[in-house]
Amino acid sequence: MEERGLDAAVVAGHTYGNPTLVYLLNGAEVSQGIVVKKRGEEAVFIHSPIERDEAVATGLRLVNMAKYDFVSILREKEDRLEATVELYRRIFAELEVRGEVGFYGIADRGQAYLLLKALDETLPDVHVRGEVERGLFDVARETKDATEIAQMQEVARLTIEVMQDTVQFLRQHRIQDETLVTDDGSPLTVGRVKQHILRLLAERRMEDPEGVIFAIGRDAGVPHSKGRTNDPIRLGQTIVYDLFPRRPGGYFFDCTRTFCLGYAPPEVEQVYQDVKECVQAVIDAVEVGVEARRLQQVACAFFEERGHPTIAGDPKTEEGFVHSVGHGLGLAVHEEPAFSDVPSNTRTLQPGHVFTVEPGLYYPERGYGVRIEDVVWIDEAGKAQNLTELPKELIVEL
Amino acid sequence: MEERGLDAAVVAGHTYGNPTLVYLLNGAEVSQGIVVKKRGEEAVFIHSPIERDEAVATGLRLVNMAKYDFVSILREKEDRLEATVELYRRIFAELEVRGEVGFYGIADRGQAYLLLKALDETLPDVHVRGEVERGLFDVARETKDATEIAQMQEVARLTIEVMQDTVQFLRQHRIQDETLVTDDGSPLTVGRVKQHILRLLAERRMEDPEGVIFAIGRDAGVPHSKGRTNDPIRLGQTIVYDLFPRRPGGYFFDCTRTFCLGYAPPEVEQVYQDVKECVQAVIDAVEVGVEARRLQQVACAFFEERGHPTIAGDPKTEEGFVHSVGHGLGLAVHEEPAFSDVPSNTRTLQPGHVFTVEPGLYYPERGYGVRIEDVVWIDEAGKAQNLTELPKELIVEL
Repeated sequence: MEERGLDAAVVAGHTYGNPTLVYLLNGAEVSQGIVVKKRGEEAVFIHSPIERDEAVATGLRLVNMAKYDFVSILREKEDRLEATVELYRRIFAELEVRGEVGFYGIADRGQAYLLLKALDETLPDVHVRGEVERGLFDVARETKDATEIAQMQEVARLTIEVMQDTVQFLRQHRIQDETLVTDDGSPLTVGRVKQHILRLLAERRMEDPEGVIFAIGRDAGVPHSKGRTNDPIRLGQTIVYDLFPRRPGGYFFDCTRTFCLGYAPPEVEQVYQDVKECVQAVIDAVEVGVEARRLQQVACAFFEERGHPTIAGDPKTEEGFVHSVGHGLGLAVHEEPAFSDVPSNTRTLQPGHVFTVEPGLYYPERGYGVRIEDVVWIDEAGKAQNLTELPKELIVEL
Repeated sequence: MEERGLDAAVVAGHTYGNPTLVYLLNGAEVSQGIVVKKRGEEAVFIHSPIERDEAVATGLRLVNMAKYDFVSILREKEDRLEATVELYRRIFAELEVRGEVGFYGIADRGQAYLLLKALDETLPDVHVRGEVERGLFDVARETKDATEIAQMQEVARLTIEVMQDTVQFLRQHRIQDETLVTDDGSPLTVGRVKQHILRLLAERRMEDPEGVIFAIGRDAGVPHSKGRTNDPIRLGQTIVYDLFPRRPGGYFFDCTRTFCLGYAPPEVEQVYQDVKECVQAVIDAVEVGVEARRLQQVACAFFEERGHPTIAGDPKTEEGFVHSVGHGLGLAVHEEPAFSDVPSNTRTLQPGHVFTVEPGLYYPERGYGVRIEDVVWIDEAGKAQNLTELPKELIVEL
């Protein structure tokens, strides 16, 4: 905070979809609140009165929101913006918050603008600050400690189990006209497979809040195509299976495998080999102190050398390698560090970083796409550890 | 928009945890984007190039974000805030957006403040606007049409099935020393029950992103206590079971029942009766044109007459009726209309409103709490329809 010239930081909102607040609350099962952290002092959690039991689990110093009597303020002020300013005035007066105050945590953007503008204009001792990139808590979140790594390893183990069990589920089906069919003779569809994946997750108390990708054939050639519910599962087509689940409110894992049932066209075999080797080339380039954008450059150079178009050569290409080589992983699926190859990206790789390495090659016009994604952790000694203990094999024998 | 003096509205961000964006995108499975809606014109969706397939499902006019070449802007500008301002400048220039422009959708609050301030200061033709309460899209979302009601009824049916199956699951257990035990003789715990609930949800392709409440005894006496994982399930204690799931990305349902296994203490029976009758008293007060805050007043008056403390009499009470009588329900668990009994709440009940009615009485010191929650829809004819076809019975026979 000193480096950023901040005297205090305020993190507010609902916990749902708000990983910075979840991070500060140490995973306690509360739905909302305000954390106030003054430089050099312990954080204070202002919690809802009806969540006083759960608030204890945060381990933070607690203040019951009832103390500020927001309902009475609302009765006096009649205007919600004014009332909210008055609420913050009371909180800041009691906790002696003043000077440069950074605000964090998600909110409706128009609401946040009006409230922070009003606080900046109304409270004489407070100068409102925000951060556009790599904010205070993004940096805190981006390096994981041993406890966090242990949790991520557990989610890794369960995610890999689900992916393996999904392949077993596919293999249990009969084949008819190059298509998997269920016991009643109807084709197995992408929708049915996803339903099975959700069940496998639920059995492990995991959830999939952002939606699994299970895309076949041409859809596999569009990186974020989720797969069409009614598509049948056909042999010899690339299936991109990208799963990014978590324990409720906890850390995410993220893994992608691409496979073909029964056999693969030779063209796909070559592309698969290129992607698989690219994963390794990128992991080999991981080193403490290296610029994060370097990994994107390594992947693009690798693919261009093998004759594939990339966004380095043509930012608008929809064929070849068309996305980022990876992203930080933690309480959000996408967090720091970021790997975009732009001059403003001065991030360097550090011990404690956990991120995906996920090159892919996409040829939607030719009806296929391949992505392979592992998760790498840079350990305390600065060594790149692959957290994804799952083989990479193109063909699933039936 | 005319009423609010808005020339255009911009809704942006990730779809995850961003119901207004989800609403405008008609449930398409995209992860992010920007919707620009000019007054009197069709909405435009600016989507990620790698989500071009999913974007089609929005039914909106599409623009591929690749067109604005954000990566090249980032390369030129070096500063992400400046680059983002330039991105919006290009979008607004092409779509001829100017005048009073409202911004919506979730974002980090500090980031949103800096970006909107910069847009307001930098773009000469644009005046940045936000809304603190009951914004443009909150109002659009708060009345549900027939398609939305049909979806909510389907989620209602599945939610009720899960709640009934949960009770069946409890009843399948043996009793030992007034406690439910599993086949291996160990006590059935709250954690095990929740695991079973998640499985029942997964089998129906439902998810529970905000966490089920299954709280027993003293914990049932604290409204948002989620229940402790290791607590055993004992006979004769109140169990508050509050389930608010959805289909992924879809509409929520929300239902609470309180029950005791085997028998209930007479004191609890009386409190249960009071809560059950209060639900009906509140539903009886539902009428088109009535002020929403009136329902809160009805519940408080009802309970006070029966000798229970309420937040109307003492805003800080932790005993008796301590929360809001309900909330609007839709793509978010909590949305418009709001029922708080404050002067600024001038909302009136309207056809198409869907909201919970959930009075409760809490006596944590005495080791119990009771809440009962139904969902009410005001139909096209202005009639209150109860969407919760689930009996209210205190005692579950074993």
